[in-house]
Amino acid sequence: MSTALQEHLPYSPSADRDDFTYIEELRQLHPSDIAERLENERFPAQRIVEILLRLGNRIAIETFQQLTMGTQRSCLETANTKIMLQFIENMEPDDRVDLLKKIDEDIWEAMMPLIAQAERNRICRLWKYKEGTAGSVMTTEYAYLPGDITVRTALERLRLQAPNKETIYYVYITDAQRQLLGMISLRDLIMSRPHAVLSEIMQTSLISVPHDMDVETVARNISKYDFLALPVVDPENRLLGIITVDDVIDIIRAENTEDFQLISAVVPFEEQYFKRPLGKLFWNRFLWLAILLFTSILSVSVMEWHADALHQMFALAFFIPMVTGTCGNAGTQSATMVVRGLALGEIVPKDFLRVFYRELLMGLALGCALGIMAYFRVVLQDHNLMLGCIVASALLATLLTANLTGALIPLVLKKIGLDPALTAGPFIATVIDAVGITIYFQIALFLMEFFH
Amino acid sequence: MSTALQEHLPYSPSADRDDFTYIEELRQLHPSDIAERLENERFPAQRIVEILLRLGNRIAIETFQQLTMGTQRSCLETANTKIMLQFIENMEPDDRVDLLKKIDEDIWEAMMPLIAQAERNRICRLWKYKEGTAGSVMTTEYAYLPGDITVRTALERLRLQAPNKETIYYVYITDAQRQLLGMISLRDLIMSRPHAVLSEIMQTSLISVPHDMDVETVARNISKYDFLALPVVDPENRLLGIITVDDVIDIIRAENTEDFQLISAVVPFEEQYFKRPLGKLFWNRFLWLAILLFTSILSVSVMEWHADALHQMFALAFFIPMVTGTCGNAGTQSATMVVRGLALGEIVPKDFLRVFYRELLMGLALGCALGIMAYFRVVLQDHNLMLGCIVASALLATLLTANLTGALIPLVLKKIGLDPALTAGPFIATVIDAVGITIYFQIALFLMEFFH
Repeated sequence: MSTALQEHLPYSPSADRDDFTYIEELRQLHPSDIAERLENERFPAQRIVEILLRLGNRIAIETFQQLTMGTQRSCLETANTKIMLQFIENMEPDDRVDLLKKIDEDIWEAMMPLIAQAERNRICRLWKYKEGTAGSVMTTEYAYLPGDITVRTALERLRLQAPNKETIYYVYITDAQRQLLGMISLRDLIMSRPHAVLSEIMQTSLISVPHDMDVETVARNISKYDFLALPVVDPENRLLGIITVDDVIDIIRAENTEDFQLISAVVPFEEQYFKRPLGKLFWNRFLWLAILLFTSILSVSVMEWHADALHQMFALAFFIPMVTGTCGNAGTQSATMVVRGLALGEIVPKDFLRVFYRELLMGLALGCALGIMAYFRVVLQDHNLMLGCIVASALLATLLTANLTGALIPLVLKKIGLDPALTAGPFIATVIDAVGITIYFQIALFLMEFFH
Repeated sequence: MSTALQEHLPYSPSADRDDFTYIEELRQLHPSDIAERLENERFPAQRIVEILLRLGNRIAIETFQQLTMGTQRSCLETANTKIMLQFIENMEPDDRVDLLKKIDEDIWEAMMPLIAQAERNRICRLWKYKEGTAGSVMTTEYAYLPGDITVRTALERLRLQAPNKETIYYVYITDAQRQLLGMISLRDLIMSRPHAVLSEIMQTSLISVPHDMDVETVARNISKYDFLALPVVDPENRLLGIITVDDVIDIIRAENTEDFQLISAVVPFEEQYFKRPLGKLFWNRFLWLAILLFTSILSVSVMEWHADALHQMFALAFFIPMVTGTCGNAGTQSATMVVRGLALGEIVPKDFLRVFYRELLMGLALGCALGIMAYFRVVLQDHNLMLGCIVASALLATLLTANLTGALIPLVLKKIGLDPALTAGPFIATVIDAVGITIYFQIALFLMEFFH
């Protein structure tokens, strides 16, 4: 196959000495580093394909796998389909399907007939799994053996399987119907007597995940048990594929990035910061900011409704940013902690009452402590006892509300199947603003009437 | 050693049938699940140790390793030192040192003389590495072989080494001075001819990390290259230990949790949400809220200084929460994106100008779009053209400031060696509030003078 790739190398007499040195320099690097360099140089796709071909077969194939999906896609869409076919055929099956799902239908249709029937079937099988499920991130290149062979035979067979498997460190024992019977690690295999039979030494109490389990839960499982891979099965316990630990790291990173984007009110996107075009990034940010601006109009209206109270005690206006800011911060704190707890599996929706109780106490404690501080700020500098009482008690009441809202809304969202990270941060802060200002003025009106 | 542990099993004639069933039930589970159960039941430490001992040696040792450090610590501090010694001796070296660093000095001093000399030396070696560096998370239980032996001999030696090594999937080739010469994976080993010599088939261009590299960078490397382990070396390239992929997952999780806590202005803590005592959690939250409350007093003062302007145009007060809120949100967006980009290595401090340029454009675009929306809100509902101009231009100016501040402060912090996540979220929002209100009033005063 090495020749097959080299054939397509465009003959370029102009390729000078420098270019040759550059390629040689790249060749010394790890494929991940080559990919990173090619991405950072922002070469056009045509040039990337050219460099890949000149790197030689094995390096080219590995480097292509490490490119970002955006770059892979532009390579596919610009270069000759036949050239690209070889990259496609050698990709890991799960990454390949993700990529094929993103490219233009024309290219995809031109390419499919060229792919070997067996591979095509494999692509179709993986295609049907919904994004974000175990099935969509698993690889079908796992090592498997029957249970009735000896360790010696097993090692011999593994030697033959190894080149095409993503990992051979975990070997799955299946029957003729691909039913998952057990697992044995390569470590146990080489430590066992050569004549032992696999079915006698394999682990039978093994943890597998259904193909429709969401990837976050899969990631949690693999890191909880310190596995290198986790088998994915269908409802009949037939082995469909495995999810390897390196994919899990990528999943954890992607999930965390999404959570960070959500809690800072950015519509999630997958590219790196500098890779996201400014125009698109504008919409990722503008959409939420516009929603939040409309929400904050609520605060404006609340203030307009209470214009009378403001006229009565002009200084009330000065403390609004302080009250709403502090409560927004407390709400963000509790929301982020609960969102993170949910993501790590430390909190589940049925903990509602426990969370409620904790955050009620916490809100009271924080509200009192901060209320007292605010009281002294007002009294010592403005010498207005009533204003001090208003600010302090408003701070307590709104902080309690903010704290509970922040903690409980993510639980409710999770319960009804939405992403809890949606609520944390700006959105809660903005809603709390309007509620907080209302509470503030109600307390002010009540106390002003009471004192007079 | 099985008997050694069993000896200490307290004789409890009262332990009824139920307890027996409970232990048997636990025994069926994976050690990670047993640990989770024991944690969730919130047993006292004494009871946990009792259950562990009754689970039998191997399971007990593995389960103990999976307990949280807090629980491990209370077990050590309540149970007999001699009993606990066996758990300590069987822990992974890196986890063990972390734990020993946290327990009372008395217990530590009582335990040390009981530990075998070789283990004690190993503990002392690991002890000196600073927390957060590669040295502090590496394990010294790696598999290593000399380069001049054949594959067949290597496999035989690995069989002997295997029980005491954290992983044998990567085998490091060292010389007599432990100088790192190369690496070979078990996969390559079993696929090679039995008579091949290791030094001829090993990978020599391998990636290692210095012992003082920070764990975040290590985690990034291991996930970039999809390794199962990464060797840690001293300045003379002597192999000190390895960092395995399962530890890396834990590091990534911990780092992300810390970032989430920092950006929501919570002083970072390690326990799970429900495990953190309320009293301590109060201080984790109160400290930041108090700092932010003091910062927000700035906003109050700014408003007090501009009381005249407010008297001139009372309606100005109504729009303050909208302007400050929107700018706070934009600042949070850009800060979180940059913080995340820094954590993933997508952005480095020397990208300052590129980030500045991007966020300048983005701030202008967002400011104009949102300013126009705000203008129409004011004009359509309040029929006050001048107020509309004030609000819109203040929104543009403050949003631009907020966006740039949010994006650039994390870069500066990173440059001077602080955690960039410190700035994101509430802190920036609160500082921006005061700046925003100042800009708002300055624009208001200027426009009011201009129109009259």
